Amino acid sequence: MPVITLSTDFGAVDEYVGAMKGVILTIYPSVAIVDITHELPAHDVRYAAHALAGFYRFFPRDTVHVVVVDPGVGTDRRILALETDVHTFIAPDNGVLTAVMEREPVRRIVSVENPAYFQETVSQTFHGRDVFSPVAAWVSKGVDIARIGPAVEAGETVRLSMPKPRKIDDRTLTGTVTMVDRFGNLTTDIDADALADFLGATRPENVSAAIKGRRIHGLSNTYASAGTDEPLMIVGSRDYLEIAVNRGSASRHFDAVEGESLSLTLTERSTVP
Amino acid sequence: MPVITLSTDFGAVDEYVGAMKGVILTIYPSVAIVDITHELPAHDVRYAAHALAGFYRFFPRDTVHVVVVDPGVGTDRRILALETDVHTFIAPDNGVLTAVMEREPVRRIVSVENPAYFQETVSQTFHGRDVFSPVAAWVSKGVDIARIGPAVEAGETVRLSMPKPRKIDDRTLTGTVTMVDRFGNLTTDIDADALADFLGATRPENVSAAIKGRRIHGLSNTYASAGTDEPLMIVGSRDYLEIAVNRGSASRHFDAVEGESLSLTLTERSTVP
Amino acid sequence: MPVITLSTDFGAVDEYVGAMKGVILTIYPSVAIVDITHELPAHDVRYAAHALAGFYRFFPRDTVHVVVVDPGVGTDRRILALETDVHTFIAPDNGVLTAVMEREPVRRIVSVENPAYFQETVSQTFHGRDVFSPVAAWVSKGVDIARIGPAVEAGETVRLSMPKPRKIDDRTLTGTVTMVDRFGNLTTDIDADALADFLGATRPENVSAAIKGRRIHGLSNTYASAGTDEPLMIVGSRDYLEIAVNRGSASRHFDAVEGESLSLTLTERSTVP
Repeated sequence: MPVITLSTDFGAVDEYVGAMKGVILTIYPSVAIVDITHELPAHDVRYAAHALAGFYRFFPRDTVHVVVVDPGVGTDRRILALETDVHTFIAPDNGVLTAVMEREPVRRIVSVENPAYFQETVSQTFHGRDVFSPVAAWVSKGVDIARIGPAVEAGETVRLSMPKPRKIDDRTLTGTVTMVDRFGNLTTDIDADALADFLGATRPENVSAAIKGRRIHGLSNTYASAGTDEPLMIVGSRDYLEIAVNRGSASRHFDAVEGESLSLTLTERSTVP
Repeated sequence: MPVITLSTDFGAVDEYVGAMKGVILTIYPSVAIVDITHELPAHDVRYAAHALAGFYRFFPRDTVHVVVVDPGVGTDRRILALETDVHTFIAPDNGVLTAVMEREPVRRIVSVENPAYFQETVSQTFHGRDVFSPVAAWVSKGVDIARIGPAVEAGETVRLSMPKPRKIDDRTLTGTVTMVDRFGNLTTDIDADALADFLGATRPENVSAAIKGRRIHGLSNTYASAGTDEPLMIVGSRDYLEIAVNRGSASRHFDAVEGESLSLTLTERSTVP
Repeated sequence: MPVITLSTDFGAVDEYVGAMKGVILTIYPSVAIVDITHELPAHDVRYAAHALAGFYRFFPRDTVHVVVVDPGVGTDRRILALETDVHTFIAPDNGVLTAVMEREPVRRIVSVENPAYFQETVSQTFHGRDVFSPVAAWVSKGVDIARIGPAVEAGETVRLSMPKPRKIDDRTLTGTVTMVDRFGNLTTDIDADALADFLGATRPENVSAAIKGRRIHGLSNTYASAGTDEPLMIVGSRDYLEIAVNRGSASRHFDAVEGESLSLTLTERSTVP
């Protein structure tokens, strides 16, 4: 069974997502529509980009992922259809696909422009229903994206700035807070691979993080490994190092927001056997 | 794949909607259940009627739409099964089907009364699970609604008052606010067709709206076309003229509620070529 | 079509549930995934246990029910796969399956331990995605639970304390408040069968309840049968006697919480014909 996933900031109260599902099922009755979330923070492209990075790769081959966080609806912003070796993504050209483009080999990108694959009447305020949904249904059904619109070079698309961690020396790695999630956890740009690389044979208890002039000792395995209201660092389920506070908000605790820098230090020399 | 849509005010916290889905799938395992919303404002029949009008027509032929906003559950209010040329609707007889009955050719209506199509035990508090769901599953599976209960004339059903716009003269159209949505937008009874008819060859910038002694000039294409906190008028995704405030609440801005009247004026004579 | 139900406290904002669905569909593309709720109160095992009891039995034979309310994630708490004659349940061993084990004949229970049925990499913070989901998919697909891990005796599992009503004499039954739901209704341990048994031929208007030194007369059929802000007792949709307040909170009204006792009294001798 082919799959289309839906991620939007339309909220769960109104019938907007329902209308999108009707459009999809009318075009392609045997597709499975999977709700990811419709409660993405309104117009928050960065939040949506992180959420997308957190789920897309778990889906079967040929899944079509639709992301509608689209503050530019009604303006002349482009809509992209992006094809990797395994999935297709339909999203506004506003940076929400940045992480996908960094991680996956992009096969083709087109600008969604061919009204033959839109609803007959396209409203000015609801492209989710009138453009994104029918295009996703047609693509899932097998329409080649080359028929949806003209090719776009990856370099011409809108990207979010994505900081990268920097190794200062053998014992020091600096990184940046890329997102504050709704629990106040500080997600950093240090992913699990970069962290493992930096640690080498050093044990997790012998790394410390400095942020806003304060220090956290040791890498935790669970949020509960720190006392209540105590800070900790942990590799989160999205595979990035996070600064968290057990049952609290790290953002408030450290008075830290997106863009804040942090640095990791090995407190004991690694002793490779 | 046959489709049943579910729209309720049961909320997303509890398992009530889950129980409904179990009942449906037990009777008809191969039906696709589509969640529209379960966060409709509690007991707000008018809100539910507008939401229903916003999505039903986008669904495939033979879809069964279930709407459970039912302040009268446990009283002797009727439940209706209503058949149009394309869809069937299962809903309480409380006016929630008013817009459907105004727009669609109604083929048949019955009062849902035959316990052969209910759960074996019917609770007094949860007809969504014990009556609406099994009836929807049986109808989707092909049971003729005539077997569900006795015929009801359209004229005998409960209707919401639905105001209609009135053309005062060639340059003036009056309308009424029919609903305040949760963003504070004022939905009116002037639909896109009536508006186009009134405008004729007049350009969108040459119409103005008066409401509560204030005036809005020109018809907008996007919510963002007015400045922040500035009012605008726009045809919304439900195809009705709305009074909105960019990033704000028109209801608060104009101190206007459901029932408020407004009038449109052409500020320049139309010059048909 | 086989069914997997999902009940979690992950919330609707983030993509966590979406990732679980992707994992399931990758392993078993033709399964129907049914969302029950993802808004269970965080870490509230008792609430989740009541919710589960409210929906599981309405699902078709062979449904796999996944419940992830798991404050112990990352510790050495067990995960159980429990098989009854009709369903399989995948849940942490924290008491959330108590009601199921009391009501259903348990065929087998195993401790979920075989990594062959997990995601290749198992994160420390997200077993919902990396353990519960793949195990559910494999079990739904037909893997015998004996292959998932070693057998566990029912007596070795964690249970919630489940009070039982006590018949003091022919005219008096005592019970206990087992849960305060989010509307402030007080759910008791007196189920519909126990109540019917106690009532015998006595009419519903001739039973009264005493709680916190106050008395409610008569058993209601609908929440609206009491005046606004007036207390009532009613058999709820989960089939237990509830103390409620029409359009209000019984918990606040009676200043009563979980564990509070109540007693029912027949105010008129039953007159069996």
